Amino acid sequence: MSSSPYSGTVHLDEARRVAIFGGTHGNEMSGVTLVNLWMNNCAEIQRKGVDTKPFITNPKAVEKCSRYVDTDLNRAFTPENLSTPAGGDLPYEIQRAQEINRMFGPKGSPEAYDVIFDLHNTTSNMGCTLILESSKDHFNLQMMNYIKKAIAPASCLVLLNEHPLLKYSTSRSVAKHPVGLEVGPQPQGVLRSNIFEAMRVILKHALDFIELFNAGMHFPTCTVEVFRVADRIDYPRDANGNIIAMVHPTLQDCDWEPLNPGDPMFQTFDGKTIHYQGSCTVYPTFINEAAYYEKQQAFVTTRRETLVASSIRKA
Amino acid sequence: MSSSPYSGTVHLDEARRVAIFGGTHGNEMSGVTLVNLWMNNCAEIQRKGVDTKPFITNPKAVEKCSRYVDTDLNRAFTPENLSTPAGGDLPYEIQRAQEINRMFGPKGSPEAYDVIFDLHNTTSNMGCTLILESSKDHFNLQMMNYIKKAIAPASCLVLLNEHPLLKYSTSRSVAKHPVGLEVGPQPQGVLRSNIFEAMRVILKHALDFIELFNAGMHFPTCTVEVFRVADRIDYPRDANGNIIAMVHPTLQDCDWEPLNPGDPMFQTFDGKTIHYQGSCTVYPTFINEAAYYEKQQAFVTTRRETLVASSIRKA
Ligand SMILES: [Zn+2]
Ligand SMILES: [Zn+2]
Repeated sequence: MSSSPYSGTVHLDEARRVAIFGGTHGNEMSGVTLVNLWMNNCAEIQRKGVDTKPFITNPKAVEKCSRYVDTDLNRAFTPENLSTPAGGDLPYEIQRAQEINRMFGPKGSPEAYDVIFDLHNTTSNMGCTLILESSKDHFNLQMMNYIKKAIAPASCLVLLNEHPLLKYSTSRSVAKHPVGLEVGPQPQGVLRSNIFEAMRVILKHALDFIELFNAGMHFPTCTVEVFRVADRIDYPRDANGNIIAMVHPTLQDCDWEPLNPGDPMFQTFDGKTIHYQGSCTVYPTFINEAAYYEKQQAFVTTRRETLVASSIRKA
Repeated sequence: MSSSPYSGTVHLDEARRVAIFGGTHGNEMSGVTLVNLWMNNCAEIQRKGVDTKPFITNPKAVEKCSRYVDTDLNRAFTPENLSTPAGGDLPYEIQRAQEINRMFGPKGSPEAYDVIFDLHNTTSNMGCTLILESSKDHFNLQMMNYIKKAIAPASCLVLLNEHPLLKYSTSRSVAKHPVGLEVGPQPQGVLRSNIFEAMRVILKHALDFIELFNAGMHFPTCTVEVFRVADRIDYPRDANGNIIAMVHPTLQDCDWEPLNPGDPMFQTFDGKTIHYQGSCTVYPTFINEAAYYEKQQAFVTTRRETLVASSIRKA
């Protein structure tokens, strides 16, 4: 037996209650379409020993085919919002966050759902990206490892957002094991077959993993490469706050590729290049995402890191 | 001298008054950004003998970064809308159409602007597309020929929409010579440097053409390849009107490429292929444009045609 700190198997509760959220952003069509399909016919997402609930989280935004109605639902699951007294005068998404928290939570409680998959699309060239909120969730890390191996040679990257300032209060954060799935590039309001099928395949493997875990399979310790959110980079602006440059053509569509100190980053409207001034190589992602203009974000930088997942088995 | 009917030079009024419209759709960022730039500094669009006015047509939609506020401005320039009594209770875009018609028209009158360029983006993979509304506008046909030659080996296609039912009442239709410019692919709400620069170059050559024409240059007869709008194809739907299929992966992004009888056209969510049933080859375009879901249009078919442009010179 190894004496490594990772050699002991961690015993975890089985994951009986699973939800699949679509329409957290109402104009991200792959998740909206898949969840609507599965609400009509759940055969594809049924697994032995798993109760899986497909759910449209922001039906009014889906109806309007807009990201949100009053405020971003995927930033709304704060302790303040979830504990404020309910009322019809609250912004729609805050009311909705409270309902979702009642149905799938309460967040942080033993009654909360075990796993929530939240399905998103991005206009960035991110491919298939799984988003985790904790580097210490060994169940999720093992799931990432399982999915990566299952879809090879296709690839699927893991974005880890546990940044103290840039982490936000997601819809999926209601669950014990929150998993974001972000697939792109796809314009808002558009459904592309390649993006739709890619998302569908990831969900298939994710549910397979849960079924195997619940059946008692042992998952030995492994490593998982993740990209940890480091910084948010805004567009260059003039004194009035107006954007004066675009993502540089050599950076556009190059999500996950190294950006080195001195590399071109933006191009001003009068043709000047603005270079990356950081002190070390980073891996940008969410490059030129439509929804992040209003969040003053041209892209986020990440650092590549290898995490160790403990060996796990059902308790 | 040739006795061809095309050999006689047509003498046309010079084109003194030119407008460049951006933001007819408020979330199509190349035109919005270029027009805003040029309103601040017009040096780039100044030409000898030409008075060029950059103009944001739908400022409220630009502010919201949405296609429109109440109704599609680019369908609003109908005789009924333009002649209805003005009033604050009219939909915003109808009021705006009336204002634009007063400033740049009246449509169909001798006082109307000579040329209006209207700048659009599409989520479809259409590249640079110039849109004409008449096969008999020899000034515009000569301009198309000039631009195509000037930007070669880059390419720029001409879409001709004079379909009796599918033609619509555009913002640019206020001018004597209306020119639409549609550049893609670009998601709504996103500014991509490659699309921005492509649009900018087309405008440069278009203005150069007008300057040369006004200076008295003779443009000999020529031919122009155009794609004439033929039919609108909707997504397959169920009995309740819900979409049940996506653009087939072999058609997606293949704007302007031949679609032959029997070719795959859609893919249903359960994996079945729907084939094109037409009787002859067509050239689809506006494939999977985000804004056309609400117009029940997956793409339009076109037929390739060669038009003859008469020789022209300033009157
Ligand atoms: Zn989203
Ligand atoms: Zn448009």
